[in-house]
Amino acid sequence: MDDTYRGDETLDRLLRRAGSPLGAARVRRLVRGVVAAPEPFEPDAWMALVAARPGAELAGQLAALRARLAAAADDGLDGPGNEAPARLEALLGELRRRRLHGFIVPRADEHQGEYVPRRAERLAWLTGFTGSAGTAVVLRDRAAVFVDGRYTLQARTEVDAALYEFPPPADGPPGQWIAAHLPPKARLAYDPWLHTPDQVAHLRAACEKAGARLVAAADNPVDAVWRNQPPPPIAPVVAQSTTFTGVTADEKRRRVAATLADEKVDAAVLTAPDSIAWLLNLRGGDVPFTPLALAFAVLNADATVDLFVDRRKLTKGVERHLDKEVTVRGPGAFGAALDRLGGARKTVRVDPAGTPAWVVDRLKKAGARLSRGPDPCALPKARKTPVELKGIRAAHRRDGASLSRFLAWLAATAPDGGVTEMAAAERLEGLRRQGKHFRGLSFPTISGAGANGAIVHYRVTEKTNRDLEPGSLYLVDSGAQYLDGTTDVTRTVAIGEPTDEMRDRFTRVLKGHIAIATARFPKGTTGSQLDTLARRALWEVGLDYDHGTGHGVGAYLCVHEGPQRVSKQPNRVALEPGMVVSNEPGYYKTGAYGIRIENLVTVTPAEAPEGAEKDLLGFETLTLAPIDLTVVEPSLVTGAERAWLDAYHARVREALTPLVDADTARWLETATRPLG
Amino acid sequence: MDDTYRGDETLDRLLRRAGSPLGAARVRRLVRGVVAAPEPFEPDAWMALVAARPGAELAGQLAALRARLAAAADDGLDGPGNEAPARLEALLGELRRRRLHGFIVPRADEHQGEYVPRRAERLAWLTGFTGSAGTAVVLRDRAAVFVDGRYTLQARTEVDAALYEFPPPADGPPGQWIAAHLPPKARLAYDPWLHTPDQVAHLRAACEKAGARLVAAADNPVDAVWRNQPPPPIAPVVAQSTTFTGVTADEKRRRVAATLADEKVDAAVLTAPDSIAWLLNLRGGDVPFTPLALAFAVLNADATVDLFVDRRKLTKGVERHLDKEVTVRGPGAFGAALDRLGGARKTVRVDPAGTPAWVVDRLKKAGARLSRGPDPCALPKARKTPVELKGIRAAHRRDGASLSRFLAWLAATAPDGGVTEMAAAERLEGLRRQGKHFRGLSFPTISGAGANGAIVHYRVTEKTNRDLEPGSLYLVDSGAQYLDGTTDVTRTVAIGEPTDEMRDRFTRVLKGHIAIATARFPKGTTGSQLDTLARRALWEVGLDYDHGTGHGVGAYLCVHEGPQRVSKQPNRVALEPGMVVSNEPGYYKTGAYGIRIENLVTVTPAEAPEGAEKDLLGFETLTLAPIDLTVVEPSLVTGAERAWLDAYHARVREALTPLVDADTARWLETATRPLG
Repeated sequence: MDDTYRGDETLDRLLRRAGSPLGAARVRRLVRGVVAAPEPFEPDAWMALVAARPGAELAGQLAALRARLAAAADDGLDGPGNEAPARLEALLGELRRRRLHGFIVPRADEHQGEYVPRRAERLAWLTGFTGSAGTAVVLRDRAAVFVDGRYTLQARTEVDAALYEFPPPADGPPGQWIAAHLPPKARLAYDPWLHTPDQVAHLRAACEKAGARLVAAADNPVDAVWRNQPPPPIAPVVAQSTTFTGVTADEKRRRVAATLADEKVDAAVLTAPDSIAWLLNLRGGDVPFTPLALAFAVLNADATVDLFVDRRKLTKGVERHLDKEVTVRGPGAFGAALDRLGGARKTVRVDPAGTPAWVVDRLKKAGARLSRGPDPCALPKARKTPVELKGIRAAHRRDGASLSRFLAWLAATAPDGGVTEMAAAERLEGLRRQGKHFRGLSFPTISGAGANGAIVHYRVTEKTNRDLEPGSLYLVDSGAQYLDGTTDVTRTVAIGEPTDEMRDRFTRVLKGHIAIATARFPKGTTGSQLDTLARRALWEVGLDYDHGTGHGVGAYLCVHEGPQRVSKQPNRVALEPGMVVSNEPGYYKTGAYGIRIENLVTVTPAEAPEGAEKDLLGFETLTLAPIDLTVVEPSLVTGAERAWLDAYHARVREALTPLVDADTARWLETATRPLG
Repeated sequence: MDDTYRGDETLDRLLRRAGSPLGAARVRRLVRGVVAAPEPFEPDAWMALVAARPGAELAGQLAALRARLAAAADDGLDGPGNEAPARLEALLGELRRRRLHGFIVPRADEHQGEYVPRRAERLAWLTGFTGSAGTAVVLRDRAAVFVDGRYTLQARTEVDAALYEFPPPADGPPGQWIAAHLPPKARLAYDPWLHTPDQVAHLRAACEKAGARLVAAADNPVDAVWRNQPPPPIAPVVAQSTTFTGVTADEKRRRVAATLADEKVDAAVLTAPDSIAWLLNLRGGDVPFTPLALAFAVLNADATVDLFVDRRKLTKGVERHLDKEVTVRGPGAFGAALDRLGGARKTVRVDPAGTPAWVVDRLKKAGARLSRGPDPCALPKARKTPVELKGIRAAHRRDGASLSRFLAWLAATAPDGGVTEMAAAERLEGLRRQGKHFRGLSFPTISGAGANGAIVHYRVTEKTNRDLEPGSLYLVDSGAQYLDGTTDVTRTVAIGEPTDEMRDRFTRVLKGHIAIATARFPKGTTGSQLDTLARRALWEVGLDYDHGTGHGVGAYLCVHEGPQRVSKQPNRVALEPGMVVSNEPGYYKTGAYGIRIENLVTVTPAEAPEGAEKDLLGFETLTLAPIDLTVVEPSLVTGAERAWLDAYHARVREALTPLVDADTARWLETATRPLG
C-alpha cells in the first residue's frame, strides 16, 4: 500500500474508478469526521462509507489521507506545554465580547453520554481535566473546576491550580459556589445543548440567589475560541443481528410505542444514543469504548421512527436493515421535526434527566405538550432478553478465560518484580483481543499498583506508571465489548505476601460482595435498598467506600447504563429479572492500596421456601474469574460466605478450564481451591 | 357544681363578677371552639381562657354550657345510620351549582398534619373513612377512595362500596385514576388550603393527561354542604418550660433565623404547627394526641416572628412567655402578611412538602421570591437537645414501668380467657395515666388480638372487639405524651403457647429489630440505607412487611415527625446524633396474627475501632419493656443477637424493677431472663 497521499486529483480518479458517488472534497470532509471518531477496532472499516469495494490503491490513498488529516488534527487535546492560561484567556475574551460575566463548561455532549466525542471534550481542552464527569465555571475574576469524590486527586494533578479553584465536593454541585461568587445582575451563560432542564433549573436557582441571571448561549463560546475543534465524528453504523438481540427492531418499536400509547403520549424524543442503538438494533463507533452512533430520534406512538443521523455514517447493510417505518433524516432536520410536533399540539415524552434543555425549550416554544418521564427505551433495554443473556454468559466465559490467563501469568511473573501497570494492562488487552467477537475495551483499564490502586478511577500514564511490587496489592478493573455482550470485572490480587490489614480489608470487601451475590429480596426491591448489605462489614470497623455498589451494564452497549443501580443514592427503579448490574464494593486507603471485587450479576427469580408470600429475586453471578484467596482471612468468613466462595470457585474452574492453556489450567486449579 | 345551664343572663352576671372581659355571646362562640377541640386531658383547663379564677358557680355554668353545645354539635361525624349517600348527593349538587365536574377531598387540614381538628374531617364526614391518610375523588358519574396499604381493609369496612370504588394501591395515587376517568374539558376542583404545590402539580398533570382542567375552589364545597361543621378548635395554649426543652425560644429563633440569613432568605413561612410549637416553646391541644396549637407563623431573618393564631386560645402565661420579638396576630391577618412579604420583594422560604398551595400562590401573586426548601425548624427540632433526651429517657422509664405492669397483669390474666382488646387497651391507658407528667396518649392504642393484629393500623371498636385467646398472639402498639417526652412502643406477646410458625416469624422480626438496634454506620448515612437490615431475615423466607421501619418522634410533640425516617422509600436526610426514631419491623399474616416489635431509639456516636476512618454512629434504645421470650426461637438467633437481647433485658430489669409493684417485679425477673 502507498503510504503517502498523492493529492486530490489522484483520489478523484480512484474514487470514480471504484464507483464511489463521492469526490475528493467530500471524502476529505468525511475523513475529518473519521479522524474525530475514536480509533476504530477495524481500522479500515470506515472505507466502506466511501466505496463498496475500494480496492488496494484507493484504500491506500484513503489511509494516507486519514493519516495526514489525523496529524493535522492532532493539536486538539494534546497541544504542547500548558496551554490552559491562553485558552482560559481566549474564553474570557469571548465572554467579554458577548457581555457575559461567565460560562459553564460541563463535561457533556448533547446526549449526556458518559463517553463523548472529541468535539465535546471542551472541559478537557479548557482545563486539562480528562475525567468522565466534572464542570468548570468560568467567571470574569475566578474560575473553578467541580468534580466528585472519584476525581478530586486527578483534578488536582491535571488542572492548573493557579487558574482554577477546586471547591470540595462537600460544598455540593456548582450551584452553591455560583450563588456565592456571581455578582448581582451578572449574566452567566450556559449551552442549552449540554444541560438538562433539571440542571438548568438548579443553575437558575443559584443565579437567582445571587441576584444574577442565567442565559442560554446561542452557540458555545468555547467552540468560538477552540481553533481546530474536531467536527462531529463519523464511524460506520452497522446492524446488530437478532442472533444477539433476540428481538427485532420492528418488534421493539412496536412494544415501546405501545407503552407510549398506553400513557396517551404521541411521541418520545430519544436523545440517548444507546436507546436508539437498542431500539433499532444498530451499533456504531462515534465515542470511545461504546459501540454507538450519535443520533437523535423521535419514536411515534404508531411505532414509526424518525432517525436524525449523519447519513454518511450508514453502511449499506444498515440501509437494508432499517425498514420503511424508520425514516432517516439529517441532524439538521431535528429542530424542524420538534417544531412540527409542537405545531400539531402533540404530547411529547421527554426525559428530564437526559434531554438537552434546547430540545425541551424548542418543543415548548413550538406548542408541544410535554410529558416528563423516563426515556421509554431505558427500562426495556435494561431487561435483557434470554438471547441477550445467553450471549452475555458466553462473553463472560471468554472474558473470564482471558482474565484468568492474565492472572496466571501475573502470579508467575509479578512477584519477581519488573511488571508495570502499563505492561499488565497491555498484556490483558492483548489476551482479550484473541477472544471471539471481541470489539475493543468497554472502558479504559484501571491498572493500579499499590497506592495507585487507591485512586478509584485511576488511569495509568507514562508519568504515573509503577511496578507491581512484592508486598503490595494490585487492582485491575477492566472490561471488553464483545458482539454478544459487555463485560466489566475487577480483581485485586496480592503481589507476594499481603499484610494482615490488607487481608482484613479485603475480606470485609469480599463479605460485602457476597452479601449482594447471595441477597434474596422481594420483587419490587430497588438497588438502593441492597446497597447497605455491601457496606456493612466495612462500617463495623469505621470504613466505607466513596462510590456506588453497582451500575447497570448494556448488552454490547454502554458499560454503565440505567435506570437501575445499586447505590446509597436513592433510586426508585425496582430490580427486575434480566437486568444486569455490577457488584463492586471496595476499600481504598489513600497512599497505600485499593481493593475492589467486582462481578457482573443478573437478576433472577429465586426459589422461595414454603410459606413464602412474596416472589423472591436474587442474583446469578455472570463474571467468571478467581478471587485471590491469599488475601482472604478465613476467620472473618461465615459458613454461608465460605459456601458461596467455594461454589463460585468450583463454577469458575469448571467453566474456564476447557478454555485455557495448560499453565493457566494448573494455576486455576490452585486459585479456585476451597478456602482453607 | 350545677349541671344545668341557667341561661345567658346568668352567665353574663357570673362573667362580670369574675372580672372576665367576655360576655355570654363571646363565651358561647369560644365554647363552640372548645367543643370542636379534642377531649382535653384537663377537662376544665379551657375555663382559664374565660376568666383567670372562674369560681365554682361560673365553672359549673361553663361546664354546663359546654355539655349543652357538645350535645348540639354531636351530629358531626357520628350521625345516625349511613348518611354517606345523602352527603355525596349534597356535594354533587354543590359541584353542579359551581359547574364543576368533580372535587378532591383529601384527609388533610391546612397544616398537612397527621391528626386534624374535627372541622377538617371532611373525608370521614363524606365517606365514613376514618384512617389517618386517604383521599376521595368525587366525579359526577363515579367516585373513589384512595388509601395506602395500611388502610385497604379499613376502607372496605368503613366506606360504602356502592358509592365509592377502591382503586388498588398498586394503581398509584389518584393521578392515574383521574387521568383515566375525568372527561376531556371537565373542571376538577381542589381546595388550595389542603394541598401542597407538589400535590397540586401531580393532580394538574393528571388532569392535563385527561385533557381536563384542575381549578382551585375559592372555598371548600364540602364546607358548603356540611351542616353543623365544627368551627376551628379552641384549646388553651401554654408555655413549655425550658426545664424540658433545654433551649429558650429566644435562642431557637436566633439560631434558625441565622440559618435563613446564611441562605439569603428573608423569611420563612411556617405552616407546620409542630414547628411553631417547637420554635416558640408552646404547646396546645387543638388536635387529638398531639399537644399543638393550630397556627401559622412567619419567622424573619432578624429572628422576629409573626404568629397568626386565635388569640382567644392564649393563656395568661403564654402572653408573658412570648417576648416582644414575637407579634401575635389573628389568623385573618395571615394573607395580608404574605402580601406584605411579596410587596417588599422578599425571598421567602416555603417547604413544598408541607405548605398549602394557597400560601405559595398568594406569595407568588404578591411578588415574593420563593425559596423552596425544607421547613427550617424541621431539622433542629429533630435533633433533640441533651435536656430533651434526659426528659425522654425519664419518660421512657415511666412508660416502660406502666407497660410492664400491664404485661405482667396480662401474663397472669389473659391465658384464662376473658380479656378483650378493649379492656386491655383501657387497662394500659389507666396504668399510664398514673405516671408523672402524663398528658394523654400519643396516638390511638392498637390493641389487636389474633387476626386483628394483622391489621397494621387496627383500632378496636365495639364491633371488632375480640378476646385474647390462648394460642394466639396479641399485638399492642401504644404510646403516651408526657411533659418530658413522647413514647411509642409495640409489644407482641403470646397468649398461652405460640405455634412454631409464630415463633419463626417473631424471631425473624426480632432479628430485624436487633439489626437496627446494633447497626453502626458512618456519619451521613440515611435511614433509607438502614431499612433493609430490618427486613433481611424475613426476605430470606419470602416475607416482608408493608410499612416503614422507623419514623421520627417529637419531644412532647408529634409521635410521627420528620425529616428523617427509616424506610425503603428514599429519604435523603442523614441520621444525626440526638434524633429519635422508632425501630419497628413487623410481620402480618392476614386473617391469622400480626407481629411488631417497636422500640424508640436515639442516634448516638458509636465507638470506632483503631484504624477507623469514618465517624461512626449507632443507636441507643430508649424504650424499656420486655420482649416476649416465649415467642423467640433460640436456634435462629446468632450469638451477637443473643448478646444484645440479654443485655437489653438486663437493662430493662434494672431500670424498671425499682418503679413497679412486687408482682410486676417478680414477673419482670422472669420476663427479662437470659434467652435459654
